[in-house]
Amino acid sequence: MDFNSFLTSLGTSFAIFVVLMLLFTWLSRKQGNAVVYYPNRILKGMDPWEGRSGERNPVAWIQEAINSSEKDVVTMSGVDTAVYFVFLGTAVGILVLASLVLLPLLLPVAASDPGVNGSGTTSSGTFNELDKLAMGHVQERSQRLWAFVFATYWVSIVTYYLLWNAYKHVSDLRAAALMAPVVRPEQFAVVVRDIPTPPQGQTRKEQVDKFFREIYPDTFYRSLVVTNNKQVNKIWQEMEGYKKKLAHAEAVYGESKTEGNPEGTRPTCRTGFLGLVGDKVDTIDHCHEKINELIPRLEAQQKVTLREKQQSSAIVFFTSRLTAASAAQNLHSRMVDTWSVMDAPEPRQIIWSNLPNNFYQRQIRQYVVYFIVFLTIVFYMIPIGFVSAFTTLSNLVKLLPFIKPIVKQNVLRTVLEAYLPQLALIIFLALLPKFLFFLSITEGILSESHAIRAASGKYFYFSVLNVFIGVTVGGTLFSTFKIVEKDPNIIVPLLASSLPGNATFFLTYVALKFFVGYGLELSRVVPLIIYHLKRKYLCKTEAELKEAWAPGDLGYGTRIPADMLILTIVLCYSVIAPVMIPFGVIYFGLGWLVLRNQALKVLVPSYESYGKFWPHIYTRIMAALILFQLTMFGYFGVKNFYYTAILLPLPICSLIFAYICKQKFYQFFHHTALEVASHEIPNMEHVYRSFLPPSLASEKPDDDQFDDALSQASRTGSAV
Amino acid sequence: MDFNSFLTSLGTSFAIFVVLMLLFTWLSRKQGNAVVYYPNRILKGMDPWEGRSGERNPVAWIQEAINSSEKDVVTMSGVDTAVYFVFLGTAVGILVLASLVLLPLLLPVAASDPGVNGSGTTSSGTFNELDKLAMGHVQERSQRLWAFVFATYWVSIVTYYLLWNAYKHVSDLRAAALMAPVVRPEQFAVVVRDIPTPPQGQTRKEQVDKFFREIYPDTFYRSLVVTNNKQVNKIWQEMEGYKKKLAHAEAVYGESKTEGNPEGTRPTCRTGFLGLVGDKVDTIDHCHEKINELIPRLEAQQKVTLREKQQSSAIVFFTSRLTAASAAQNLHSRMVDTWSVMDAPEPRQIIWSNLPNNFYQRQIRQYVVYFIVFLTIVFYMIPIGFVSAFTTLSNLVKLLPFIKPIVKQNVLRTVLEAYLPQLALIIFLALLPKFLFFLSITEGILSESHAIRAASGKYFYFSVLNVFIGVTVGGTLFSTFKIVEKDPNIIVPLLASSLPGNATFFLTYVALKFFVGYGLELSRVVPLIIYHLKRKYLCKTEAELKEAWAPGDLGYGTRIPADMLILTIVLCYSVIAPVMIPFGVIYFGLGWLVLRNQALKVLVPSYESYGKFWPHIYTRIMAALILFQLTMFGYFGVKNFYYTAILLPLPICSLIFAYICKQKFYQFFHHTALEVASHEIPNMEHVYRSFLPPSLASEKPDDDQFDDALSQASRTGSAV
Repeated sequence: MDFNSFLTSLGTSFAIFVVLMLLFTWLSRKQGNAVVYYPNRILKGMDPWEGRSGERNPVAWIQEAINSSEKDVVTMSGVDTAVYFVFLGTAVGILVLASLVLLPLLLPVAASDPGVNGSGTTSSGTFNELDKLAMGHVQERSQRLWAFVFATYWVSIVTYYLLWNAYKHVSDLRAAALMAPVVRPEQFAVVVRDIPTPPQGQTRKEQVDKFFREIYPDTFYRSLVVTNNKQVNKIWQEMEGYKKKLAHAEAVYGESKTEGNPEGTRPTCRTGFLGLVGDKVDTIDHCHEKINELIPRLEAQQKVTLREKQQSSAIVFFTSRLTAASAAQNLHSRMVDTWSVMDAPEPRQIIWSNLPNNFYQRQIRQYVVYFIVFLTIVFYMIPIGFVSAFTTLSNLVKLLPFIKPIVKQNVLRTVLEAYLPQLALIIFLALLPKFLFFLSITEGILSESHAIRAASGKYFYFSVLNVFIGVTVGGTLFSTFKIVEKDPNIIVPLLASSLPGNATFFLTYVALKFFVGYGLELSRVVPLIIYHLKRKYLCKTEAELKEAWAPGDLGYGTRIPADMLILTIVLCYSVIAPVMIPFGVIYFGLGWLVLRNQALKVLVPSYESYGKFWPHIYTRIMAALILFQLTMFGYFGVKNFYYTAILLPLPICSLIFAYICKQKFYQFFHHTALEVASHEIPNMEHVYRSFLPPSLASEKPDDDQFDDALSQASRTGSAV
Repeated sequence: MDFNSFLTSLGTSFAIFVVLMLLFTWLSRKQGNAVVYYPNRILKGMDPWEGRSGERNPVAWIQEAINSSEKDVVTMSGVDTAVYFVFLGTAVGILVLASLVLLPLLLPVAASDPGVNGSGTTSSGTFNELDKLAMGHVQERSQRLWAFVFATYWVSIVTYYLLWNAYKHVSDLRAAALMAPVVRPEQFAVVVRDIPTPPQGQTRKEQVDKFFREIYPDTFYRSLVVTNNKQVNKIWQEMEGYKKKLAHAEAVYGESKTEGNPEGTRPTCRTGFLGLVGDKVDTIDHCHEKINELIPRLEAQQKVTLREKQQSSAIVFFTSRLTAASAAQNLHSRMVDTWSVMDAPEPRQIIWSNLPNNFYQRQIRQYVVYFIVFLTIVFYMIPIGFVSAFTTLSNLVKLLPFIKPIVKQNVLRTVLEAYLPQLALIIFLALLPKFLFFLSITEGILSESHAIRAASGKYFYFSVLNVFIGVTVGGTLFSTFKIVEKDPNIIVPLLASSLPGNATFFLTYVALKFFVGYGLELSRVVPLIIYHLKRKYLCKTEAELKEAWAPGDLGYGTRIPADMLILTIVLCYSVIAPVMIPFGVIYFGLGWLVLRNQALKVLVPSYESYGKFWPHIYTRIMAALILFQLTMFGYFGVKNFYYTAILLPLPICSLIFAYICKQKFYQFFHHTALEVASHEIPNMEHVYRSFLPPSLASEKPDDDQFDDALSQASRTGSAV
């Protein structure tokens, strides 16, 4: 790629961004689009355009984003989102501080060097303008390399400093959120797992109550034994489905009445598979019938579930945050494989099916999943290759004879043959985050946010190892392994010598990512189109409409690994090719602006983990920093710099820094420090009810019944 | 060593043991020796010969030892001693169960083999009787090796099974002790470290009280701020010294009066260095004078200490065991480096000087100590070599000219020259446990029992690496390292091929150890002689006499590493030379008998850790087992056995077993499980006072004064 085509590509991306931004300005002003551009505000009962009626300029949203405080973000989108902004801010800070020194120092030093010919290229020899500004241009053994040594130290120190502050800041954010007087049910509850078999004549509930009442006589409130709700959930969902269908049908019927036909046409449907086959019936009657049929079944199933499907875990409630926080940290039983207690996740994000897993199952699952992830990362090319081989055209024709006419056309055939392997790769990469999330659930993780964190961590290692190192070294991780296995010391020089050659690839990658990616994010063109289509053709009831514009959260599971990959790339190139830094600054800066807008107006987080994401992000920034330091060490070695050893203290410093940070801050993200738990006693009934699964609690006005049923039922159960 | 001389050596050792045992029977019956042979019973106020008056046979003590129950041991010597017997019992159990299969199986298999010539010797070719019974006698690639494979599996399985039971049993012992209704002050207290600087206008005590009263409003009792007692301890000890001296002088004076001289001779002493120089004064008057002089100084120093020497740690008391147990496990502050809370050790074993170390200091100290220990283990020959070189005779003559006449004698000269280097080694090895204990204290460990555990762990690695591997491979660990460094895969075959050659060395080592060692232990000849000498010439007062027969505890710091070394040796040889097993059985069986006698009658433990020693022992047994498995793997390789790989699952199983045991049991040895902490409220005043350092509390009848002084004083202090 030469300099002109690079500029063209950059310009095109920028133009797309401007177009999308203007589109956003225009579309977001329309009343009908408010639910797409301001769902957050609408759900909170605020006026979407509050206080900004007069403004007409297209950059008003930028001013709003910049002027908004962290507190606004916490209020509108929660602590997790605010923590994500701390990450973006830290990334921008590191890169800006680095560029302030590196750009004025390194670019002249490199450009004014007599230079080397050929071997030191940063762009496979096609991009001379950039080559001259990179470390590759400096001659071997040159004293000028000292400037690059200094730069490496500077980047590291800046990173330590800002990370330390960020960690402290996030810790404060978390503390403030946990200390807030708002009653959050999960702060008064703990999850108990591995409950042993109850003694003869005692129900599980009595057993749990007795155990905890003995230890916490003053603050124990009550317990909720977890049941296997698979069956009852199925019936409940079926019923909910019919209720929705009924509401939809009634809305359609009402519409048809108003349209000049006073009788209206009663909607009909078929009872068979997917509503496509079977007898044609009146939908409203059919739904009523079905619901009436399901209500007694649901009630019967609820009783059966409460009586016979109790499992070896429970949720225990306390009247004090302090006791709950303390109980989650304490060893309750001598044997760790019984009565294990941990913090309760938010009710909305509990993964109920993982609760009854016992101690050994959890351990084994974890290691099996780690092993599968390891295989996935290292041998990811194998299934793709297999699928590609399987989906050659001749094979496809055999399997699906009806595509034969298509294959016979020569042009189509060529295109298909060229793209089928790529298609397999694209599908694999698109499905990967979902697969990793599924694996994390299988691991036995209890809360959605934790599972997303785990999946995101796995995805980060996949992308750094396969995309970054894969593109750099060239070829798959597996083939690299084979080289490295023969001589383990080769990995650092190998990476260091291949890195400069791929600078332009990553430059365009980053530029594309921020202009087009963030442009789409801001303009919300895709959700807007989907919303309008749904509104027009599908949604009839209010509830359906609301579902259609439900905006969701930031999607940390894929967003953070993507950001971390960019940060890793920019950090690793920061000294070798400092021109990379401004691109990184734009990526994270633009991201900050656009997402701030989204956080204030669009995002509706589906869970809150009070910044538990941070230690995870922090660890990966440290991993990126150490990778950078090792790469630099290798690259100085490649440059035959005599004092390369002067860089050795850096990775050691990083490890010490990481260790101190972990020691000092991490515990608080794992457990709730008692000093932040306050004392007031909330409405415990409300706390308790928030943990009841809807399928078990929905229709019952009096709650004692639930409790009594559970208690009596399980006594009968244990007597059987 | 041929078979006859081996038998002779064994016979001699046995004879010594019999003589010592008879000596014990004879000496222990004498009334005057009761305090040496029954100090434990006497201190507990029991009759030494209770219920055994008629018995006269020399093995009565064996019957008593066998008939005693674990409960007796716990009552007489505490849980730690009982746990040590669980270890001895487990070791005997493993070896007996192993021998039941290995001896009848392997000895015939090996003896009936046609055999190999030369290379397979177990005793450097001098001990044919043993050679024929060892695995080395079996031909290479022989199918008979399958029996040895089976034996290896059998030993491993037996070890897993008995270790699992032992761990469970020890856990029960610990739980029972912790649940006992006896009030143990340390169960109601926690140690708080890293207390931040108190805010302006608040004393440290107020700060601590406020912090804990807020979190534990119902169960907080009071706090005790730790002060730097160096100065006050010095004065107090000086005063105690004079008090003892006074009592001694008065006893001497009293004696002299009764001996016909009605006036008596008042004892005198010199006031200078060690009582050797200076003016001669009347001791009684001198001591009275000194004590009167010291009392006001002590009181003044107490005030100064309480006012100005407060440190950043405290002991906090609760009115409930449960709260104390829970508090020790909880994270109290968001930052781990402030308000760190842990279980309080027993008052008598607190290492006060380590309390104020702050978080980072503790971390750094720990790593520095680990590094020093590593150096000590690997390069232990260097200081010895250095000392040896320094203490050659010619050097000594230069330094100490007065030994010249001795050196001139030829015989003496030869002996000295031969023994001086060995002497350096012996002194080094004798000082090593003390040095390791000192290092463990320097680490910042809070309790004596923990420091002894840490020292014992370090000593175990030293003895296994240097004695066992050193003797086996031949040469120091350092020289072995140099070989291994060149080819890391050589370590297992190297160990495996050298091991059989040293079987006889270890056989005689074990035999000497048990017959002579335990004989001396049982007969207590050395303490008896020392006691009678002291009684005759030194001790005049009751207190002095009591000090003279103070028996102490088992000395875990050196005993357990020695036992573990024997167990490691026997396990590693169990399949290669099964004749080793009976020696191991005798070692641990005899040890069990002799020490049971000591536990019931002699031992007075100086601390109680409720079996915290066990996980430490357990880990080292597992290490020995894994070493055994690796050695066998290597030795089968040396034998060119085709199916050697069949042994590979064993070390993996061991790691999994160790992991499961740790997961299941270990937590309870680290923290107190809440289910074992009971609820009654004890006399808190007594609990509190037991933690007061004697130098600060001894003379004060009213305790409020202490508290007020502390509170007021520190307010003044903080205002300064």
